[in-house]
Amino acid sequence: MGSPVHRVSLGDTWSRQMHPDIESERYMQSFDVERLTNILDGESIIHSYPEFSCKDNYFMTQNERYKAAMRRAFHIRLIARRLGWLEDGRELGYAYRALSGDVALNIHRVFVRALRSLGSEEQIAKWDPLCKNIQIIATYAQTELGHGTYLQGLETEATYDAATQEFVIHSPTLTATKWWPGDLGRSATHALVQAQLICSGARRGMHAFIVPIRSLQDHTPLPGIIIGDIGPKMDFDQTDNGFLQLNHVRVPRENMLSRFAQVLPDGTYVKLGTAQSNYLPMVVVRVELLSGEILPILQKACVIAMRYSVIRRQSRLRPSDPEAKVLDYQTQQQKLFPQLAISYAFHFLAVSLLEFFQHSYTAILNQDFSFLPELHALSTGMKAMMSEFCTQGAEMCRRACGGHGYSKLSGLPSLVTKLSASCTYEGENTVLYLQVARFLVKSYLQTQMSPGSTPQRSLSPSVAYLTAPDLARCPAQRAADFLCPELYTTAWAHVAVRLIKDSVQHLQTLTQSGADQHEAWNQTTVIHLQAAKVHCYYVTVKGFTEALEKLENEPAIQQVLKRLCDLHAIHGILTNSGDFLHDAFLSGAQVDMARTAYLDLLRLIRKDAILLTDAFDFTDQCLNSALGCYDGNVYERLFQWAQKSPTNTQENPAYEEYIRPLLQSWRSKL
Amino acid sequence: MGSPVHRVSLGDTWSRQMHPDIESERYMQSFDVERLTNILDGESIIHSYPEFSCKDNYFMTQNERYKAAMRRAFHIRLIARRLGWLEDGRELGYAYRALSGDVALNIHRVFVRALRSLGSEEQIAKWDPLCKNIQIIATYAQTELGHGTYLQGLETEATYDAATQEFVIHSPTLTATKWWPGDLGRSATHALVQAQLICSGARRGMHAFIVPIRSLQDHTPLPGIIIGDIGPKMDFDQTDNGFLQLNHVRVPRENMLSRFAQVLPDGTYVKLGTAQSNYLPMVVVRVELLSGEILPILQKACVIAMRYSVIRRQSRLRPSDPEAKVLDYQTQQQKLFPQLAISYAFHFLAVSLLEFFQHSYTAILNQDFSFLPELHALSTGMKAMMSEFCTQGAEMCRRACGGHGYSKLSGLPSLVTKLSASCTYEGENTVLYLQVARFLVKSYLQTQMSPGSTPQRSLSPSVAYLTAPDLARCPAQRAADFLCPELYTTAWAHVAVRLIKDSVQHLQTLTQSGADQHEAWNQTTVIHLQAAKVHCYYVTVKGFTEALEKLENEPAIQQVLKRLCDLHAIHGILTNSGDFLHDAFLSGAQVDMARTAYLDLLRLIRKDAILLTDAFDFTDQCLNSALGCYDGNVYERLFQWAQKSPTNTQENPAYEEYIRPLLQSWRSKL
Repeated sequence: MGSPVHRVSLGDTWSRQMHPDIESERYMQSFDVERLTNILDGESIIHSYPEFSCKDNYFMTQNERYKAAMRRAFHIRLIARRLGWLEDGRELGYAYRALSGDVALNIHRVFVRALRSLGSEEQIAKWDPLCKNIQIIATYAQTELGHGTYLQGLETEATYDAATQEFVIHSPTLTATKWWPGDLGRSATHALVQAQLICSGARRGMHAFIVPIRSLQDHTPLPGIIIGDIGPKMDFDQTDNGFLQLNHVRVPRENMLSRFAQVLPDGTYVKLGTAQSNYLPMVVVRVELLSGEILPILQKACVIAMRYSVIRRQSRLRPSDPEAKVLDYQTQQQKLFPQLAISYAFHFLAVSLLEFFQHSYTAILNQDFSFLPELHALSTGMKAMMSEFCTQGAEMCRRACGGHGYSKLSGLPSLVTKLSASCTYEGENTVLYLQVARFLVKSYLQTQMSPGSTPQRSLSPSVAYLTAPDLARCPAQRAADFLCPELYTTAWAHVAVRLIKDSVQHLQTLTQSGADQHEAWNQTTVIHLQAAKVHCYYVTVKGFTEALEKLENEPAIQQVLKRLCDLHAIHGILTNSGDFLHDAFLSGAQVDMARTAYLDLLRLIRKDAILLTDAFDFTDQCLNSALGCYDGNVYERLFQWAQKSPTNTQENPAYEEYIRPLLQSWRSKL
Repeated sequence: MGSPVHRVSLGDTWSRQMHPDIESERYMQSFDVERLTNILDGESIIHSYPEFSCKDNYFMTQNERYKAAMRRAFHIRLIARRLGWLEDGRELGYAYRALSGDVALNIHRVFVRALRSLGSEEQIAKWDPLCKNIQIIATYAQTELGHGTYLQGLETEATYDAATQEFVIHSPTLTATKWWPGDLGRSATHALVQAQLICSGARRGMHAFIVPIRSLQDHTPLPGIIIGDIGPKMDFDQTDNGFLQLNHVRVPRENMLSRFAQVLPDGTYVKLGTAQSNYLPMVVVRVELLSGEILPILQKACVIAMRYSVIRRQSRLRPSDPEAKVLDYQTQQQKLFPQLAISYAFHFLAVSLLEFFQHSYTAILNQDFSFLPELHALSTGMKAMMSEFCTQGAEMCRRACGGHGYSKLSGLPSLVTKLSASCTYEGENTVLYLQVARFLVKSYLQTQMSPGSTPQRSLSPSVAYLTAPDLARCPAQRAADFLCPELYTTAWAHVAVRLIKDSVQHLQTLTQSGADQHEAWNQTTVIHLQAAKVHCYYVTVKGFTEALEKLENEPAIQQVLKRLCDLHAIHGILTNSGDFLHDAFLSGAQVDMARTAYLDLLRLIRKDAILLTDAFDFTDQCLNSALGCYDGNVYERLFQWAQKSPTNTQENPAYEEYIRPLLQSWRSKL
């Protein structure tokens, strides 16, 4: 390993003497880890500065975490300025990755994204430099105390006053209070407020308004503004998620973002985009979330749990053997390897989604909305599925580490509690899956239209399988047949088609029997949900197989990743075997074959498990885990880190007042 | 509601003006909530004293939480003494329930249980009063840094020195450090240390030793003792989970608990019980955990989520309607009602398990171990299943509350993070399920012995279904047929038998093809796990139906609970439909019928949902949730509570140092 390499984790300062139990996992490399790393992220991340250390995070209060995150935001801008990093350049991206989001002013960047999506060229020219130079600190205020995902229910009002050419922004009720925006509680000077536009007496739906909220002189709330922090949360202590009440606050007409809609001085409303235009910033944020925030957390959990599992020993596989590494147990493999497989599946999916997004985004900004339905369905579906599976997967990794996985010092609890949030923020998952379901119903109905009746639009690529030739029975005759991407992709497509068809039929049966459309929809949502989830699973399987095909020049890596792809597909079949058995597409005997193939795969993946997680190339600093360092020295680190806890460095606050009197009170009874 | 009632939650001081949306849920009572409450816990709990308030918990540091928990432990003993409460009396039980475990010195009680299980009569006579009077503070130290569930791997040694008639207790390695015991980090003066007994040169396995660890004078660690707190955890901030290293610490021979094993003065080892005797305290703790700690947490999560779901409104079911309560959505019902059903299923199961335990325990103390296999299998299986399902259920409830479920002020995050621990502590769930699997394999083999070859012991009651008559096909012909307890109990039994048989056959095939027993076991554990889980589910379904039968004098309550029982059974069938379809016991059409029955049940349970959670009778103080109070005033409370957060009451710690310089740094560039 003396040769110069691009892997940053090799420069890890925390890892020194290797534990032999983890070293032995790296002796035989069936593939080149560094090459795989480069396939994954292409470049190494910047080395950390001491200002950015997160080591004491686990001992800090909410106030301390906030201050530390602001310190990092401050220094990252100092360094960026000193080194001439570009706002959207790679270096800054790697720096944020290294900080794992533990930095303030993240929503400032969301504001900028929204400005660029929804603002006119003049507005961008005015506000973008202010943001870039941090002359203002901005946030994005959409969610309210009483409404989140259901945007039409938002109550904040922006009433146009033609007399002064101003909008009057107002929170008419307690539930209209903006609630949750990051950086709002204690930091932001400006907010992009989503509000119901009222002009010339007509309600025009949600639009975005730039509202100054704190003084640029002394940071106090401006007149009409009630503002504060929403208090303790399950995680994200570093972020000052805030609340905001607006009492008839006036902003000039120019402060409504007007790429897709404008209010003329006399109050005339001019629409320039579709009704969906306003959702664009949310699509942007969702797509960036997947590879930027959600997926790396699961990958980290995999690294930590896998490394710990080759150090931890428990019980004996045979009475004469030494205690076995827990990773040698089939049940431990069953816990961890599907999460590893999903980490890779989601990686390739996020990459292709990002490409599709970048392609579509430019078109949309130029008023070409033709890609929007597919982009919307894919981004909502993948956000829902990735956040759900990553959360579940990280918790599985955490539990696979037993009691030590419950210590914050393992790093795992905060990975789990961060991911949990992603199932709710940027669109609650159930609502998102149901949006996918509506897209599936529409797409299915499109395939049912008799040809010639209307010009048939071509199906979106992600649902092209709806019209592909279908088999009634799976042809697998032995376990090895399940290791065929075409076989399992077809199987997933078959089940997806059946469930979508089933959900449409239930809907139609209800409406034909007299239920109105909305009632019929609500009475079938459980069925639609099932169809949408299977469709999303199909998309991940299909995406993984396509990514594999592109790796034909890397046969060793292709082979090891194909095992993960197979595992991902088959694990899903076993977990949802009822869906495959329902119409006898699979027989019971075939499910048993799939299970045999699955158990064989666990054994095969075992030998590459550490290398496959090493390839994610997280530094020890970035993992910030006593269990997960590259060198495998788990117990020493856990013991040392615990000594630094305030519960050890500070005096016992209960001894004089409670413990001593308790222990001595029996004397008074004598 | 003017009549005197036993429900404590009606005395709630936090709830005042009822929100009309929750009041309307209580107008039509199809059953008597108070009667159901009395069936559930029989008595009302004590009203809280101000000393016991947990209201500020969400704002406290680990040190503050510890101190507050110790304050409660102190006052509860003052009050108990003043009012003459008995150590094991009801009042103290209700007090602990009211405090939700947020009190110090809980492991002191575990020590007492262990003492009574493992100690000789003389030892109990000596140590029990010392504990009762808190002349000592005791803890139970078993888990080590390097080993948890696998007790044979524990490294701490107790070597008998006949010369002085002492045991030398020693931690030979870093991994031998005791790690996790509650009350150990900063409080306990004595520990019951589980250690490998070595006497006359022979290793005798794990035994329990009473070891003084801190001075009774000034609370400093005694010579040879290194001790401290293990630092921050995912939850349980109030508990000082600790570590303990022993450096050749000597304790007198009498300090080894000797009900089931003794060391004579000359070092002769005398065994009085079975090898399993030492596991008895763990069985005791597990059984008490279920109804005392694990289940109430899920019940609370249900109460909070259900109440919030009739206040929260989102979107419209029909365009002309006002926004609907989220509980009126099928998907919300699907999230919450299975958790409600499980709360009731587990309640009845925990009650019957406790009865069986109390019956067996007395026998075991008198050296009759015949009930032990069944007691062990039931308590391990139910601990694993209840902790798994309660954790999953509470997280489901939390997510069903959207963003507000992520606020600590909802109470839900801490319910989830507390429950997560239960999947690991007192035996890691996978290991426990596999112990159940071994019991199932043994029981199955017992049924296969040819009659007459050996005297056939009768099967344990929980696996009696292994020899019951079985059907090859489910007879259901329409959805309503699935509402028959006999039908679904039989269905669960059928699947359990098939999977157990399958797992045994896989095991036998492997051993017959030359694998040794241990290898064969490890290669089939995934299959065994599946069988054990289905068996446990069967036990809960069977237990619920038996509890229903006993309610024949309460027809209204029986009816409403039968719906939950049906839902529990059918929801499990749908979630595991592959297992039922595998051998065509159910057809695809029958699964669809079950789904129809399931969706109908959701609608029926909807109208009683609030009453069914009111019946759990938690006070507002005990729930400690801004979302879950009896009066339904969700938004006002959330807003008010947030104002008290230190992030609002303390100055912005980052303004002068970072925010102001950031906002003004652009000037220096000009």
